[in-house]
Amino acid sequence: MVFKKITLIGRSDESFDAAVDDAVTRATDTLNNVHWVEVESFGVEIASVEGHQYQAEVEVAFELESAEE
Amino acid sequence: MVFKKITLIGRSDESFDAAVDDAVTRATDTLNNVHWVEVESFGVEIASVEGHQYQAEVEVAFELESAEE
Amino acid sequence: MVFKKITLIGRSDESFDAAVDDAVTRATDTLNNVHWVEVESFGVEIASVEGHQYQAEVEVAFELESAEE
Amino acid sequence: MVFKKITLIGRSDESFDAAVDDAVTRATDTLNNVHWVEVESFGVEIASVEGHQYQAEVEVAFELESAEE
Amino acid sequence: MVFKKITLIGRSDESFDAAVDDAVTRATDTLNNVHWVEVESFGVEIASVEGHQYQAEVEVAFELESAEE
Amino acid sequence: MVFKKITLIGRSDESFDAAVDDAVTRATDTLNNVHWVEVESFGVEIASVEGHQYQAEVEVAFELESAEE
Amino acid sequence: MVFKKITLIGRSDESFDAAVDDAVTRATDTLNNVHWVEVESFGVEIASVEGHQYQAEVEVAFELESAEE
Amino acid sequence: MVFKKITLIGRSDESFDAAVDDAVTRATDTLNNVHWVEVESFGVEIASVEGHQYQAEVEVAFELESAEE
Amino acid sequence: MVFKKITLIGRSDESFDAAVDDAVTRATDTLNNVHWVEVESFGVEIASVEGHQYQAEVEVAFELESAEE
Amino acid sequence: MVFKKITLIGRSDESFDAAVDDAVTRATDTLNNVHWVEVESFGVEIASVEGHQYQAEVEVAFELESAEE
Amino acid sequence: MVFKKITLIGRSDESFDAAVDDAVTRATDTLNNVHWVEVESFGVEIASVEGHQYQAEVEVAFELESAEE
Amino acid sequence: MVFKKITLIGRSDESFDAAVDDAVTRATDTLNNVHWVEVESFGVEIASVEGHQYQAEVEVAFELESAEE
Repeated sequence: MVFKKITLIGRSDESFDAAVDDAVTRATDTLNNVHWVEVESFGVEIASVEGHQYQAEVEVAFELESAEE
Repeated sequence: MVFKKITLIGRSDESFDAAVDDAVTRATDTLNNVHWVEVESFGVEIASVEGHQYQAEVEVAFELESAEE
Repeated sequence: MVFKKITLIGRSDESFDAAVDDAVTRATDTLNNVHWVEVESFGVEIASVEGHQYQAEVEVAFELESAEE
Repeated sequence: MVFKKITLIGRSDESFDAAVDDAVTRATDTLNNVHWVEVESFGVEIASVEGHQYQAEVEVAFELESAEE
Repeated sequence: MVFKKITLIGRSDESFDAAVDDAVTRATDTLNNVHWVEVESFGVEIASVEGHQYQAEVEVAFELESAEE
Repeated sequence: MVFKKITLIGRSDESFDAAVDDAVTRATDTLNNVHWVEVESFGVEIASVEGHQYQAEVEVAFELESAEE
Repeated sequence: MVFKKITLIGRSDESFDAAVDDAVTRATDTLNNVHWVEVESFGVEIASVEGHQYQAEVEVAFELESAEE
Repeated sequence: MVFKKITLIGRSDESFDAAVDDAVTRATDTLNNVHWVEVESFGVEIASVEGHQYQAEVEVAFELESAEE
Repeated sequence: MVFKKITLIGRSDESFDAAVDDAVTRATDTLNNVHWVEVESFGVEIASVEGHQYQAEVEVAFELESAEE
Repeated sequence: MVFKKITLIGRSDESFDAAVDDAVTRATDTLNNVHWVEVESFGVEIASVEGHQYQAEVEVAFELESAEE
Repeated sequence: MVFKKITLIGRSDESFDAAVDDAVTRATDTLNNVHWVEVESFGVEIASVEGHQYQAEVEVAFELESAEE
Repeated sequence: MVFKKITLIGRSDESFDAAVDDAVTRATDTLNNVHWVEVESFGVEIASVEGHQYQAEVEVAFELESAEE
């Protein structure tokens, strides 16, 4: 069985932890076998949002199933 | 809403700018909410093509819609 | 024509070469125009498997076809 | 209009999030057009302080105004 | 006096801050002169645990005593 | 005499070269002894602008004068 | 429970796989809870040995026990 | 057959593309089997030249012939 | 209190240590609360000077005062 | 005595070890005092060859003789 | 026989060379088979000491003996 | 005119500065137009020499003449 890794960016008005959880939740909602997540970078968006938006870029590793691309 | 990033390599016989535009055009043609692009590397292919082929590897960030993987 | 790169992790009980081949085989089975592969990292999983499991994270570059995302 | 980036290190007795906010607050208090912030590294100072001091090194990007160096 | 640095990975079911604190507590419990800690990476383990396990890899710097290796 | 380096991000609707020139022009307009420039990264902003905005992050090195901070 | 990582360099007259196994064997012989290994670099020593000596620098992650430093 | 890579720095008064072409032309004029080129970095020299001098550091890969060092 | 980091390049006809000291002296002459310095890179300029000029690029960290930008 | 390092890319239809050996053999055939080799990267070429071609980019360090450039 | 690498930080009031020697002396005093040392980074501590303290972070490689952890 | 960069490793029993000078002297003795040198890394060889041998890996940039490869 082969793993695949994809890169997601989660966002939160509250904290970096919540921004990571945002990406993890998206991944586990749409992918069956998420195994682990690596944080690539953290940032804060200020100019284009109200208040601060915490952002976390993560790599999500999941196991590919037989018929999956 | 979560962003996803994918890696594309655009190509052009003319210039590095055109190689980036090649990748950006492909991305905006097939994805609805492309937000930004980061250039990862530039190269020139010589042996396997006529003349020179400028290549640009880029990361494309777009916003995932609800039903999208 | 534009290339896309995806990240796979192949695994083998035998060797790093076989772990890379595992990922390459998966890629060429499901993608039409795989051009080249770059090895990102090698590792060995020990605690959660019998014996040793060799792992290879690779980037696979393939040419996108017209209708492909 | 041109952006400038400067490097700040925020500090907090509480958390990494608060250390980032410390640097962001300083930046938005003294600069007019802060657009975004990138986290460079996190650390904890132990020997020279009471308890733990969480530290965050960040790059702050802001838009330069006409008369500004 | 010479410093030595070692690499620890702390874990927590709650947050990245708690995962760092887990490693720092272990270090200060067993080493006399811990001076500072640098965060190397953050990750989340999902497949092999209940819920999520936040992990933080850190480098711990401490002052070597005379008789210490 | 000591050099100082600052980080600027130039922008252009036309090309990466023009984005670099944008930052260089700003630097040479406001600083007396600019010696050289190093390109750190290229990007394209798409979602928040009309058309494409080419961006270039550069480090500008200039010689500090006696009274300058 | 906290993990610790140490850096070993295994050596073999035969192959890189055997050089990694050399380091892994040493680690599992002297440490109780080795979980995984990451390959940092490969090299070949030529001048100071007969034939070629394949070398592999690896990081070994193991779980610290209660009384362990 | 073995490839060799060398590092060249091309220069132009006009553009980064022309600076890369300057290095590529030099390479293809003096080497028989240049296969590809990777761009390492871009810079602009200002203090020691009239106007701006665009510079591109590139790695050139070519196939070694039998008698070549 | 927040730290700021700036990048200076010190120069000396004598040695790398003197090049670092050149940058440190400049920093401590014009800034009140310099805390530490990190060496980024060393180089030697040959073509444009008599003899050799040792250069050291350093990051200088200092504590911002209340009214300071 | 001074060392020089050059970059070679060895190739093999069989394995990564053989690709490294290919580069090492070329180096020791044409250079007198090869001391050591560092592996920079591994890749697999697929589109332009029959089967798979394993490639290894290595840096070869050798001692310069008196009359050598 | 397997090598192990550890990270030490040497310090000196005089120079970077002396800071490296400080770490090397510590290593050779307490370890039997030190083979080589790689310099990771140089820094200068200013705020917490009289004058300047030169610091050098180094990796020390030594050969493990049979009974050694 | 195009620059070329080569990698040399200078050695000295005395200091890192002397190790760099060793490589620079070799370069300026055999090459006509050496412009600058960048230090890549410092190390100390201990096991295979009497006392300590300081080593400096440097990149030497020189201007290629018309007939030169």
